[in-house]
Amino acid sequence: MSSEQGTLPHVVVIGGGFGGLRLARRLRRAPVRLTVVDRANHHLFQPLLYQVALSVLSPAEIAMPIRAVLRAQKNARVLLCEAERVDLAGRRVELFDADSLDYDYLVLAAGARTSFFGHDEWAEHALGLKDLDDAIEIRRRVLLAFEQAERERDPQRREELMRFVVVGGGPTGVELAGAIAELGRRVMARDFRQIDPQQTKVVLLEAGPRILPAFDESLSARAAAQLESLGVEVRCRAAVSGIEPDGVRLGDGFIPTWTAIWAAGVRASPLAESLGVALDRAGRVPVRADCSLEGHPEAFAIGDIAGFVPEGAERPLPGVSPVAIQQADLVAANIAADLRGRPRKAFVYRDRGIMATIGRSRAVAQTRRFRFGGWLAWLAWLLVHIWFLIGFRNRVSVMASWFWSYLTFKSGARLITGTCLHPRVRRELEQQGRAPSRTCRE
Amino acid sequence: MSSEQGTLPHVVVIGGGFGGLRLARRLRRAPVRLTVVDRANHHLFQPLLYQVALSVLSPAEIAMPIRAVLRAQKNARVLLCEAERVDLAGRRVELFDADSLDYDYLVLAAGARTSFFGHDEWAEHALGLKDLDDAIEIRRRVLLAFEQAERERDPQRREELMRFVVVGGGPTGVELAGAIAELGRRVMARDFRQIDPQQTKVVLLEAGPRILPAFDESLSARAAAQLESLGVEVRCRAAVSGIEPDGVRLGDGFIPTWTAIWAAGVRASPLAESLGVALDRAGRVPVRADCSLEGHPEAFAIGDIAGFVPEGAERPLPGVSPVAIQQADLVAANIAADLRGRPRKAFVYRDRGIMATIGRSRAVAQTRRFRFGGWLAWLAWLLVHIWFLIGFRNRVSVMASWFWSYLTFKSGARLITGTCLHPRVRRELEQQGRAPSRTCRE
Repeated sequence: MSSEQGTLPHVVVIGGGFGGLRLARRLRRAPVRLTVVDRANHHLFQPLLYQVALSVLSPAEIAMPIRAVLRAQKNARVLLCEAERVDLAGRRVELFDADSLDYDYLVLAAGARTSFFGHDEWAEHALGLKDLDDAIEIRRRVLLAFEQAERERDPQRREELMRFVVVGGGPTGVELAGAIAELGRRVMARDFRQIDPQQTKVVLLEAGPRILPAFDESLSARAAAQLESLGVEVRCRAAVSGIEPDGVRLGDGFIPTWTAIWAAGVRASPLAESLGVALDRAGRVPVRADCSLEGHPEAFAIGDIAGFVPEGAERPLPGVSPVAIQQADLVAANIAADLRGRPRKAFVYRDRGIMATIGRSRAVAQTRRFRFGGWLAWLAWLLVHIWFLIGFRNRVSVMASWFWSYLTFKSGARLITGTCLHPRVRRELEQQGRAPSRTCRE
Repeated sequence: MSSEQGTLPHVVVIGGGFGGLRLARRLRRAPVRLTVVDRANHHLFQPLLYQVALSVLSPAEIAMPIRAVLRAQKNARVLLCEAERVDLAGRRVELFDADSLDYDYLVLAAGARTSFFGHDEWAEHALGLKDLDDAIEIRRRVLLAFEQAERERDPQRREELMRFVVVGGGPTGVELAGAIAELGRRVMARDFRQIDPQQTKVVLLEAGPRILPAFDESLSARAAAQLESLGVEVRCRAAVSGIEPDGVRLGDGFIPTWTAIWAAGVRASPLAESLGVALDRAGRVPVRADCSLEGHPEAFAIGDIAGFVPEGAERPLPGVSPVAIQQADLVAANIAADLRGRPRKAFVYRDRGIMATIGRSRAVAQTRRFRFGGWLAWLAWLLVHIWFLIGFRNRVSVMASWFWSYLTFKSGARLITGTCLHPRVRRELEQQGRAPSRTCRE
């Protein structure tokens, strides 16, 4: 593709998330050739990913083929492929299978990945939540833990199987902890014979002094109370010092568990490292006021991969979808301005508020003027998420799924795919020299 | 669990498919303790599995947790686990993780698996379709072939990527071939820029003289004509002599393709081999008139794992769900009869007809009195399949999905999960010493 010629400027967009896809749509009438590169074939509605992980929704309900979204946009093509390296000087993106793309404009919108803050060895024992595969793996592991507990004769192991530890008290951690508690307490309450899923223990660990630190203190307290009413144990000032095969280590103790979920941090896509520019602490690419890279006005970064520090501020904007979407609008306008010979504009973030959900009828929300919690916040959360869900069919389907599980306390997608052998059981069998036979599906 | 005691007889059911689950439900008021063992956590509506493989339906739409189905049945417990060996003399089932179950009655309902008729080396290059993981893998590989074709510059490789070979002209092969053709011709028609999915080639290979050999000859011909109207090339008397990494070998030639799907045969679950009894050609356990094993009146086999030869017939009954369901009814009645000291009954199969679907508005159906094809058969197929789909929510959801894709020609579940690297591309890169970098998701 590097040999391709065209009279129109070539805009390469890396990433089909909220930022990348919005940018592509915004340039639909611009005199450019667009190439959107993503390593997944789908746009993912990330805010609902935790609901796939806890089997409320099906993967297809929150994912939409990028190709289908851009079907009618004739100036855009979609490539399923991973970008491996960006050569800023040569204006070229190298793809992982040794192909490459030359560009006139580049928009880096590759997002972020789970980060263990330098403890990569924790990755083996803790489950992250950034893409559909992650969500399917969490779903598998949580459901397998209950299944294993039903078969377990040792009461202590049973207790460890039914204890779930979520690390990180941000919105994702809070949502995951609440959803696991509801899965045990309501959805699966009567499904087992030996265990009582209502005895499920969920521990939420937060290193800082309170959960949901981006929210007002009163809402943090309200969220903690709501979580506790669901049976979640909220532990603040609890810094994790190790994640081991059989539990989570804190400075002062050890929580035995079969299932540790990591929602404590992300780091910008490793693609940023290939740029050869100095990155910030979270691996983000520093950008100027117009979202372009220093010394490279033809290259932009938006969303979670970009470190945008507003004028006068000390810290970069948070990695949330409204930032990515608004930056996409700005960059699309700036590229269009370039082409018309007009000046570029600077990015100004309009914060419309934040919200987090804790479970059925429980949520907190905050805008500049209002802060509220409980059923009303939950309803607002519901409406906002349905509204922004890409794809009409998905909106209908998600609403139907939610309505159904609200009415019946059943969840629609309790599927375990892949092997039914828990990785820890496999390890234990192997240690005893008793590998499962070849007939087993793995 | 082998140490468990109870006053009620213990019935162990291996398999939560059509037969096993029906049997468990039928014994819901019987004075027995039931244990249902399955290596998947879900009952699968197998007749629609090909629709998951071709991304019409989501996995959760045709799967239902076995645990949820039996939730309210107090005399039943469900174990997620694979049975590895049956000790008929000791009346014990050994599980794959070295646990075991003692039984008073055993019902083998473990079904069948894809079989390559002794050519196990073909398994590496041909995709089978028996469980959800298979369907997800076919979906991934078919979608990846189109994605790879969009990026491919060599026209010959592009053609090979867009050629799909289905081996086996039974209902599954016919349904798969029709659904791939529709995916290319309709669903994805306008989604690509470099390739035209309407140029998709599907080749259906059948070793015998006609497809759908269980149907009347006129319906076989009609199905072949319907497939050809969708652009499927139907080749009968085409016995496959090899499946290679880059294509399918016939006696007289070679069809280059990146995607070969195997729907030519199944063999009973390998659990049958552990019984120590002589099996039939397809690995099935021979059963007596009451569906019990010779010399073991306490052990039954039903469905695809059982070889039931009706009196006066030469061949066993086919591996279709009505046989499994009717045998489940009979075995449940026979166990109940035993407990009441009454005589057992013999199994008589009531054949209510067979049907196969070829695509949108195309199908064939046949009962003892009628045979019909086209739109009416398709409608009948639709109603029968919705009707028998376990779980009210799934019925509604499948109907909505079908209605939506019927109206819009869009399909709802075009997801690729897992790596976006086609296994053949990976092989080629490795041969060139260019392994993809560590940043790639695999």
